[in-house]
Amino acid sequence: MSVLEKELEVSDLNFDFNKKDAVTELTKEFGQQFSISKSVREQHTDTTTIHTSKLPDGVVFAENEIDVKKSVEICQKYKCPIIPFGVGSSLEGHVNALYGGISIDLNNMDKILYVSPEDGYAVVQPGVTREQLNVYLRDTGLFFPIDPGANASLGGMASTNASGTNAVRYGTMKDNVISLKCVMPNGKIIKTSNKAKKSSAGYDLTRLIVGSEGTLGIITEITIKLYGIPEVIAGGRVTFPSIKDATEAVIMVIQAGIPVARIELLDQEQVKACNNYSKLNLPEEPLLLLEFHGSESSVKEQSEFFSEIVADFGGNNFESTSNNEERNKLWKARHDAYYATKSCKPDLEYIATDVCVPISRLSECIEKTQNDLKKYNLFGHIVGHVGDGNFHVQLMVDPKNENEIKNLNKFLDNLSKRAILLDGTCTGEHGIGQGKKQYLVEELGGSVDFMKNIKKALDPFNIMNPGKIF
Amino acid sequence: MSVLEKELEVSDLNFDFNKKDAVTELTKEFGQQFSISKSVREQHTDTTTIHTSKLPDGVVFAENEIDVKKSVEICQKYKCPIIPFGVGSSLEGHVNALYGGISIDLNNMDKILYVSPEDGYAVVQPGVTREQLNVYLRDTGLFFPIDPGANASLGGMASTNASGTNAVRYGTMKDNVISLKCVMPNGKIIKTSNKAKKSSAGYDLTRLIVGSEGTLGIITEITIKLYGIPEVIAGGRVTFPSIKDATEAVIMVIQAGIPVARIELLDQEQVKACNNYSKLNLPEEPLLLLEFHGSESSVKEQSEFFSEIVADFGGNNFESTSNNEERNKLWKARHDAYYATKSCKPDLEYIATDVCVPISRLSECIEKTQNDLKKYNLFGHIVGHVGDGNFHVQLMVDPKNENEIKNLNKFLDNLSKRAILLDGTCTGEHGIGQGKKQYLVEELGGSVDFMKNIKKALDPFNIMNPGKIF
Repeated sequence: MSVLEKELEVSDLNFDFNKKDAVTELTKEFGQQFSISKSVREQHTDTTTIHTSKLPDGVVFAENEIDVKKSVEICQKYKCPIIPFGVGSSLEGHVNALYGGISIDLNNMDKILYVSPEDGYAVVQPGVTREQLNVYLRDTGLFFPIDPGANASLGGMASTNASGTNAVRYGTMKDNVISLKCVMPNGKIIKTSNKAKKSSAGYDLTRLIVGSEGTLGIITEITIKLYGIPEVIAGGRVTFPSIKDATEAVIMVIQAGIPVARIELLDQEQVKACNNYSKLNLPEEPLLLLEFHGSESSVKEQSEFFSEIVADFGGNNFESTSNNEERNKLWKARHDAYYATKSCKPDLEYIATDVCVPISRLSECIEKTQNDLKKYNLFGHIVGHVGDGNFHVQLMVDPKNENEIKNLNKFLDNLSKRAILLDGTCTGEHGIGQGKKQYLVEELGGSVDFMKNIKKALDPFNIMNPGKIF
Repeated sequence: MSVLEKELEVSDLNFDFNKKDAVTELTKEFGQQFSISKSVREQHTDTTTIHTSKLPDGVVFAENEIDVKKSVEICQKYKCPIIPFGVGSSLEGHVNALYGGISIDLNNMDKILYVSPEDGYAVVQPGVTREQLNVYLRDTGLFFPIDPGANASLGGMASTNASGTNAVRYGTMKDNVISLKCVMPNGKIIKTSNKAKKSSAGYDLTRLIVGSEGTLGIITEITIKLYGIPEVIAGGRVTFPSIKDATEAVIMVIQAGIPVARIELLDQEQVKACNNYSKLNLPEEPLLLLEFHGSESSVKEQSEFFSEIVADFGGNNFESTSNNEERNKLWKARHDAYYATKSCKPDLEYIATDVCVPISRLSECIEKTQNDLKKYNLFGHIVGHVGDGNFHVQLMVDPKNENEIKNLNKFLDNLSKRAILLDGTCTGEHGIGQGKKQYLVEELGGSVDFMKNIKKALDPFNIMNPGKIF
């Protein structure tokens, strides 16, 4: 489906590549590992995004780094666009083949190559998913905390600088990738750093490539930080009279240095939907869901200190538990939030926004966004990684309703501009992709020219995921 | 003094700039704010480094961003090198004017522009020093933890990706800079990001510029993360039969998730020197010094858990205290380590190395380095940020003793190569500067070509701190 007004503007950039020759050479090189079947090509663009699918001309199923390198070399020869593909859970159209070209599917590169418990890292191929990694790690007492919700591939998560519910304690992909191996646009394979915990050796290519959305190279190996599985994990829940009370409580909790692992906000509309869907009895007020990690006494102390602070801000119905089953029950509303929203409007399409602002501006941003939902008569619920100032409006829209789509576009435009005005960003964790290119310029102005210079220096023919970010 | 053999190799790159015209125009523009006096120029290169001082042709004392912009524009017009200058505490010759040019002194840009306790950040000018900032913050209950030892400027600390003793808990500058304003080589002023805690908006220019050693632009404003001052800070001390026992204990402590704030290693020779200099009575064995941050009960728990773990690795004489005065006494050996080493050979010159390896390889790296000290008959003590795998050999050498300098060069070469072979880096926190360029290539191979491409794209005339990193 296509709901965004301006998305076709980019196609004035036309690639002058010899598609046929590229396909011929890839077929010769890869045989069964290369497909031009329409259904396969469709599977590689028609994913969780609001943008119109555009098909690649073929899909390489890479088994290893050498396959990636060969594909890039062939595509480079014919100036043919390359679109790296993980599990397709990107929300910003990252895997759409805007100018055709070749999708490089990395799912078969799913090996966990090495785990160093002493040094606290794992070396994985890009097709490894976060759930796969955590299952593998279970017996080591270690885990990888970044949790964007979807069972995304770690290559994809690195490419969009994903984060999610426990970024407030463990950071984003940017904070947790130690080193990368990449095939660069000219086919050269590089490593961005060695595996020491710190380095001041040269430019930080690791963090340049993390979040570059496949526009600078293809990640073929990732070294990521691991953490000890906490002795105790406790869940908590508390309601507030208003969003403002909830965010002010969170600010105090963070200032007090309580190392909360997750702190999620649901607005009253989301709570209503969750009550219906998950048969809960929550008071229909803004809700915070917490998770505390640590030793038994530390978790107890965190939870007690937390309950004292939130009480000062009108926090009600505080409950917490370190019993696994009860914790899952407490968190049910959050786990089911996506389905609860979808179940309200099963015939409509789902869209998630992704602004992030300094936490002191969060309640203002959410309040104005709620007003806009009313003003534009749109159906949406708000869930937020409130400790980071990041929230998502889960919208359900009818792509066939022209008036609604017009309103949606105004709403989305207001939201991104509002976040930028509040010194925040149009994207906290999903990336720019296709849809937010104009907001990147509004947000960072002239620095985008320097980003483009970097892109041109590393990918002079603009073959790596063209039409994304810029 | 000059002790490194290969440092002159770089001067084959000759700048064809019109020095006289640049100086004339800067004099006209800046009057009293521009100096060509020899003593002033000397003050701007002759700093804490082992490299031969080379003087700039003049020094601009910038008062604000516009001064920086104008200086860069004039220098750009004449293709004249620019060397940003903070307090000159860099150890790798970063402020040497290898090709002449203009030093831009940023010390007068020392304003703390804004502190947001709610959002946990401060906005500062680059000349603010870390001690100045922490004095300013005292009443807010917040602090900035990065502590490289010297009272460095925050602009300088960002430029070299500094860290120091409590990086093990709070990370490096890379982890603590939220956003930068910079004057780029073409005179354009950019901000690298807004002030949200997370962002996936475009390439991460913040972290590209942090650690770029003044080669990509001049930092004119820094937004940095602040932390709540811990309720309790406890110090601790424990000795070990061997370096291996000490590092294995540290590995277990980190795996167990004890959030130690500082964990510093002194080798037996360093302990001996500290006993002499600071009149201490420490057993002459490898020594760990600790700091625990947290609530009263959390610090108690950390310290108890710590002492249990280290006992399994032969840890002896464990002491800990949350009394300020006693803590300073415990830490005296670390605070005085630099002076203790210098006092052993007061007539010689001081050099600090800076390798960093995965912690599982640390004891091997230190042991071989100690053997090399003996083999090459060099005088050196080892202090290490052991939780990060980063250690410094504090060497005292006689620059007039040709044989010693020859041995020193072999020792330094072995050390960098050893760290790289152990999957580590030639520099954990000091930067590449002038002296480690060849090791950057040994460490990261082909990826250095991509760094150079980025440098060329952003600074086509190579005017920003030329001869550093590459």
